[in-house]
Amino acid sequence: MPDHTAQLATLPTPCLVLDEAKMTRNIERLADRARTLDVVLRPHLKTCKSVDVARRVLDGGNGPATVSTLAEAEVFAAAGINDMIYAVGISPGKLDRVLALHRSGCNLVVVIDSLAQAEAVAQASSEAGIAIPAMIEIDSDNHRSGLICDDPELITIGRTLHENGAQLRGVMAHAGESYGAQGTKAQAVFAEMERAATVAAAHALRAAGLPCPVVSVGSSPTAHAAAHLDEVTELRAGVYVFFDLVMAGIGVCSLDDIAMSVLTTVIGHQTKRGWAVVDAGWMAMSRDTGTASQPIDQGYGVVCDMHGNVLEDLIIIQANQEHGVIAVRPGSDKTLPNFPIGTQLRILPNHACATAAAHGSYHVVPVDKTTPLLEWPRFGGW
Amino acid sequence: MPDHTAQLATLPTPCLVLDEAKMTRNIERLADRARTLDVVLRPHLKTCKSVDVARRVLDGGNGPATVSTLAEAEVFAAAGINDMIYAVGISPGKLDRVLALHRSGCNLVVVIDSLAQAEAVAQASSEAGIAIPAMIEIDSDNHRSGLICDDPELITIGRTLHENGAQLRGVMAHAGESYGAQGTKAQAVFAEMERAATVAAAHALRAAGLPCPVVSVGSSPTAHAAAHLDEVTELRAGVYVFFDLVMAGIGVCSLDDIAMSVLTTVIGHQTKRGWAVVDAGWMAMSRDTGTASQPIDQGYGVVCDMHGNVLEDLIIIQANQEHGVIAVRPGSDKTLPNFPIGTQLRILPNHACATAAAHGSYHVVPVDKTTPLLEWPRFGGW
Repeated sequence: MPDHTAQLATLPTPCLVLDEAKMTRNIERLADRARTLDVVLRPHLKTCKSVDVARRVLDGGNGPATVSTLAEAEVFAAAGINDMIYAVGISPGKLDRVLALHRSGCNLVVVIDSLAQAEAVAQASSEAGIAIPAMIEIDSDNHRSGLICDDPELITIGRTLHENGAQLRGVMAHAGESYGAQGTKAQAVFAEMERAATVAAAHALRAAGLPCPVVSVGSSPTAHAAAHLDEVTELRAGVYVFFDLVMAGIGVCSLDDIAMSVLTTVIGHQTKRGWAVVDAGWMAMSRDTGTASQPIDQGYGVVCDMHGNVLEDLIIIQANQEHGVIAVRPGSDKTLPNFPIGTQLRILPNHACATAAAHGSYHVVPVDKTTPLLEWPRFGGW
Repeated sequence: MPDHTAQLATLPTPCLVLDEAKMTRNIERLADRARTLDVVLRPHLKTCKSVDVARRVLDGGNGPATVSTLAEAEVFAAAGINDMIYAVGISPGKLDRVLALHRSGCNLVVVIDSLAQAEAVAQASSEAGIAIPAMIEIDSDNHRSGLICDDPELITIGRTLHENGAQLRGVMAHAGESYGAQGTKAQAVFAEMERAATVAAAHALRAAGLPCPVVSVGSSPTAHAAAHLDEVTELRAGVYVFFDLVMAGIGVCSLDDIAMSVLTTVIGHQTKRGWAVVDAGWMAMSRDTGTASQPIDQGYGVVCDMHGNVLEDLIIIQANQEHGVIAVRPGSDKTLPNFPIGTQLRILPNHACATAAAHGSYHVVPVDKTTPLLEWPRFGGW
């Protein structure tokens, strides 16, 4: 039987460690919810950017997916995943790559929230003889993009798509503000805002004689909190696969659910200041300090031992490019344990999407105890 | 003659643009200073992570360099750069890779600030029959790592290296706190702290009968501000090659000196809120908000037109993974210009090291107007 901890100890640090058992538990949790809510689950692959993870997340290994870049769409299409939403507003200059994906057999859906985009998508569709499917983005929480559901422009945009060669596939919303909502009850309010806004928009389109087969909502907090999703057809979420400190801080998961960590090595001390210096700086952790605005500021990450057990009150209090400083959190009565030079530790990240992006692969602790550590590549770019 | 702006307009966005003329000016500026200060310039390659940039930064294309990861050391060694300091405290587990570099002809210097590291370096040197060169890090400004210059441990560490098979190469300091110092005068204080601390440490080592041929200091602010560097032998700096908003914010450069920007495309609007949404989010800009603590908070970056001209008071006020929101900065009396969907803009970054790390290459606007745009690869990892 391989000793996974001993194998981890041989890896060059910093590097990314993925606990397959925790990941699998997280995947099953949301899949169960989607079944209960009676919606199609369309996982967002922007967090993992890994074909190996996608196989485990997607229904049947190849099912509906969401992506945040055309690079993701192209990599996953090459791996046989052929039903994706590119969930960032399309620019006309990117439609050539969208069409190329369609020609290769991948049904990539684009997202728009303006007449200019609708006209560009319709024109590209007509010229290519390919009805590019498009979703209209609805703003349910003043977060970022999208139309208000009763904006009359919605009908104009829908008609422009539908009557000029594109395919009006439906409406979507993402309640990004739910990341600031503490607890299930508060998050459920955002879930209902997503649902109500998209359903109202779908009704408006249908009342105007336009098709709206898909009503899509989601974010990791709202997906886990929604009381019901009546009239919604699909659910999107991404970070739930790994989870992170931001999600734990608003109660969507526990620290024990976080499947991804950064393996690091102690490279120095400042004893008088109660510091241990490690080789995971912001380059390895990312500059994301998403817990700084939460009740518990986790600095640049929570420190765990090599087995992944949280070491109480120890966090990375500051980070430079390739240096992290581990110390006891302010206000704690704990003291820094003795971590000799060379000690290896694991750090839970604030934001899995940002931390994973710094690394070229996942070192996977497999569920199967007879299997040695695995390495799954990940990619970036646009 | 190629039209560089027209060529930029064809690039998929977001992507990294490098203005070779500005970069060359920045490189020459510090090279001139090093000559005036009569020290060897040992540029830090952690910002660029590019062989093409290294060739232009290093003396003779191949001269002394500083790196922040062993991956950098390995890539640059393979390119023929064979005199480098790995300026992050060494962990014993990394000495095999250090020795492998020495065997391949690269003189890689390690950095230590503890007896445990000195013993590990000495032991690895003895066992391999290769005297690994090591610098002792001195803490000149309570920033992070290093010994205080009069710590008696300094002599013990020096002796351990020198008498047990390693090579005591000298002392070094990095005044990281100078990044918070406004203006040349304040930065010159940190420069003198770096100089005084390392020179004192060198004197202490020599008084104990130990060699200390190299006295190394530097950061981009102190390198530009130092009044003199008497008894110092070499100067290190990295971000000065590209510069960024953090450096401009403390007066080390002007906005016009910033050689690197992110090319982005407008993908939406929220007209009532005065927003244009672009496809450069924090994945393309990084999560670094280093100007937030400066007198002028530049958000996630300063907006320029396609020619690189700053558009007054326009910044990225918020960022999500693949979305940036452009708006007029708070307090300004300007209004958002009309940026139709598809408009391309360039964004100056807060922190060049962090922003560059998100990208796989530089799209270079060459000095030579008869040369088309170039693409220089960059790398990451550890």
